[in-house]
Amino acid sequence: MKLYNEHYPAPNPRKVRIFLAEKGLNIDLVHVPMRDRAHKTPEFLAKNGLGQLPVLETDDGRFISESLAICRYLEELHPVKPLFGKAALDKAMIEMWIRRAEFRLWMPMSQAWRNDDPRTEAVVKTRFKEFGQYSRTQVAEAMNWIDRELGDGRPFLAGHGFSMADIVLLCGVDFAKFVNMPIPAEAANLQRWHAAVSARPTARA
Amino acid sequence: MKLYNEHYPAPNPRKVRIFLAEKGLNIDLVHVPMRDRAHKTPEFLAKNGLGQLPVLETDDGRFISESLAICRYLEELHPVKPLFGKAALDKAMIEMWIRRAEFRLWMPMSQAWRNDDPRTEAVVKTRFKEFGQYSRTQVAEAMNWIDRELGDGRPFLAGHGFSMADIVLLCGVDFAKFVNMPIPAEAANLQRWHAAVSARPTARA
Repeated sequence: MKLYNEHYPAPNPRKVRIFLAEKGLNIDLVHVPMRDRAHKTPEFLAKNGLGQLPVLETDDGRFISESLAICRYLEELHPVKPLFGKAALDKAMIEMWIRRAEFRLWMPMSQAWRNDDPRTEAVVKTRFKEFGQYSRTQVAEAMNWIDRELGDGRPFLAGHGFSMADIVLLCGVDFAKFVNMPIPAEAANLQRWHAAVSARPTARA
Repeated sequence: MKLYNEHYPAPNPRKVRIFLAEKGLNIDLVHVPMRDRAHKTPEFLAKNGLGQLPVLETDDGRFISESLAICRYLEELHPVKPLFGKAALDKAMIEMWIRRAEFRLWMPMSQAWRNDDPRTEAVVKTRFKEFGQYSRTQVAEAMNWIDRELGDGRPFLAGHGFSMADIVLLCGVDFAKFVNMPIPAEAANLQRWHAAVSARPTARA
């Protein structure tokens, strides 16, 4: 099994690396340098027609795209220390918070990156700058909303235990910072959460 | 248990209703008329702070938001006739295709609806019309891409069996039509798939 990977700050491969580290799993990493557009070559497009990272290649030569599909697959094979929850309601809460982090934070974050960051200007053909700027306000709103949600004192996004929802939020928050959207100073609960999950050794995976 | 619901064409509650019908499950439906902004009242916001439908209320008074989290929860409680797959690789493929349908089709579809449909003009405060129009071209591209993917002759989006991925795609394609983005005439594989899944009695749930 191997994982086609790109280094930090690429947020999607990072989710899988942190997941692997939390589970104590080792998989061969194959570096696909996005800066050289290696993810858009015919060779790579044969693995994922969308030209996106990460991709997992199974031992029998099947390819799985989408970081969450990869992590769920690995959780199926290695159920010990579940990161998608164990009881039905825990699983539901984790899935709910994964999606809320994606739709509320990741989605406008991606739009800011595509439409309003000088580093994507050369590769994104059609940009909507005002929409990208508006997306930045949506990211700040999302962070403030999550901050209020964490105000009930729970240590992790989906409840008492560290989960995939924390991995999704961490990689989103850190990439947002890379796109010049740091956590607002007044979002003390989110700051506290971020310090705690960043202090886990797996955050450096 | 009860499901806070809105009628067709609201695409998110429809996913859950089709899922329930495919599983042969019955849950009380509580109508929350979005046209009257009933999903933005303090009473409903106490169930889902994001003011979105559907929401599942469990028998012990817990609330689950996000249609996919609700369906996964119900699949946990009622594993017979799995719609998220059974073997690890099937599960991975279904999750991959759910996410591809969401990120490629649903995302620009929502942006076209928010930014370029006269029916949302009164409620969406900040609109980006050109971005909405561009999103329409992204929806057409997504449909043509899925059409090519279905060109290998597989009957369903994630492979041989009907799955949650088909439910996600069906509700997306039908809502796209409601926003004046029908399946392109030349997308014969997608047309064939759409006719087949629409002919299932559950499509009317």
